[in-house]
Amino acid sequence: MDAALSSLRVVLVSPRNPLNIGAAARAMFNFGFARLRLVNPYAVAFREARSAIGAGEILKSAEEFPSVAEAVADCALVVGTTSIGHRGLAHTVHRLEQGAPLVREQLESGPVALLFGSEKFGLSNEDLAHCHWLMRIATADRQHSMNLGQAVAVCLYELSRNLLDSRTAPARAPKAAPAADTEQITRLLVDVLGRSGYINPVTAASAENKVRRMVRRLDLSARDAPVVLGMLRQILWKLKGEK
Amino acid sequence: MDAALSSLRVVLVSPRNPLNIGAAARAMFNFGFARLRLVNPYAVAFREARSAIGAGEILKSAEEFPSVAEAVADCALVVGTTSIGHRGLAHTVHRLEQGAPLVREQLESGPVALLFGSEKFGLSNEDLAHCHWLMRIATADRQHSMNLGQAVAVCLYELSRNLLDSRTAPARAPKAAPAADTEQITRLLVDVLGRSGYINPVTAASAENKVRRMVRRLDLSARDAPVVLGMLRQILWKLKGEK
Repeated sequence: MDAALSSLRVVLVSPRNPLNIGAAARAMFNFGFARLRLVNPYAVAFREARSAIGAGEILKSAEEFPSVAEAVADCALVVGTTSIGHRGLAHTVHRLEQGAPLVREQLESGPVALLFGSEKFGLSNEDLAHCHWLMRIATADRQHSMNLGQAVAVCLYELSRNLLDSRTAPARAPKAAPAADTEQITRLLVDVLGRSGYINPVTAASAENKVRRMVRRLDLSARDAPVVLGMLRQILWKLKGEK
Repeated sequence: MDAALSSLRVVLVSPRNPLNIGAAARAMFNFGFARLRLVNPYAVAFREARSAIGAGEILKSAEEFPSVAEAVADCALVVGTTSIGHRGLAHTVHRLEQGAPLVREQLESGPVALLFGSEKFGLSNEDLAHCHWLMRIATADRQHSMNLGQAVAVCLYELSRNLLDSRTAPARAPKAAPAADTEQITRLLVDVLGRSGYINPVTAASAENKVRRMVRRLDLSARDAPVVLGMLRQILWKLKGEK
């Protein structure tokens, strides 16, 4: 059980408020999770949260990353959270109670990242592009978001629920590719599409996010990802050589 | 359904921190509850919470009582909450997920009070004496209590669980691509890989089947398949044109 819990990386993207960072860490402690990651936190907030009375091991060992890509690089599954609803155009959205068993299943075989957006803006489309799918907390009103610390608590409560149950019947799903591989596939594919004229340089940035989302939707297995990488490298080599 | 939600009285006993009072109100709003009661709150905290930016109807209409007895007088069922464990000597303690259905059942016929203790001391033995039974949030460690605002959020999430269910749309599973598309993708990809030197003409037949199986494993959606087709056509066009 502890092994599965320690495979979860709670990732706060651009948090602004030290109280929320502290609250997230406290909920993690309450429900038995340990690995906290912060992407581009407001520096003062992170410092304050870390030096707060009662800030424990989780805050002290929290890791800081400059980008979502780097924060989730070792995770085979990246799940975004939202309480407002579905903004990523092409993401599957599971209700928390339906998504949690899927996360638990994946935790059996390796690290999973659970992303929470900033207090004010939630996850951006760019952040969402790194997610395989989204979890939504079913609220009464989709116009008003939840407080960050409370959203973390509710998600971790649900994830730690019946943890023993899910462990009694391990499902054999193919092992998913690590995020570092899917990101490399994304970059190579963008390069290939640029060189072959599919991507217009003017709209390249939005095209890149579309490609990123699509590659995540493919749910590549750890076995297939290197094959796809090899194909793309070869195509790219050919496109470059023939220039 | 809404009638049931409005029959719950969330009762904060001796809260000290305005942020926690505000957080409780926000969680109530998020999960569709409306009736907040405060027993003997720290006056400054209540005033601050009420005047906070964004303090909504729930805080404005919150009622104040001098004692637990008065705050729960109209309720047929009074349930205390704890994340630490069982301190009331003679109380039945249900885990939250087991207690929540009992609360919902009672809400159908009349008001229920859900009591939360102060941040520092939780519910006192005197407070507990007013409770019919207790609900405990299952945490990893019974020595450390949950944050008040987070405990309220988790309890209300569990209470609204099946009530909000029927109002929310089921998760959308994307429609799968027709076999004709996946086969066309396979053929185009084989062509691209042949032209870029990834597939050796001698072993082309077995390579084609490997590619075919891999394309099936991608589980492309009906929406993504045409995009992938377009990408491959463009790459192929480029590879041909540059010959």
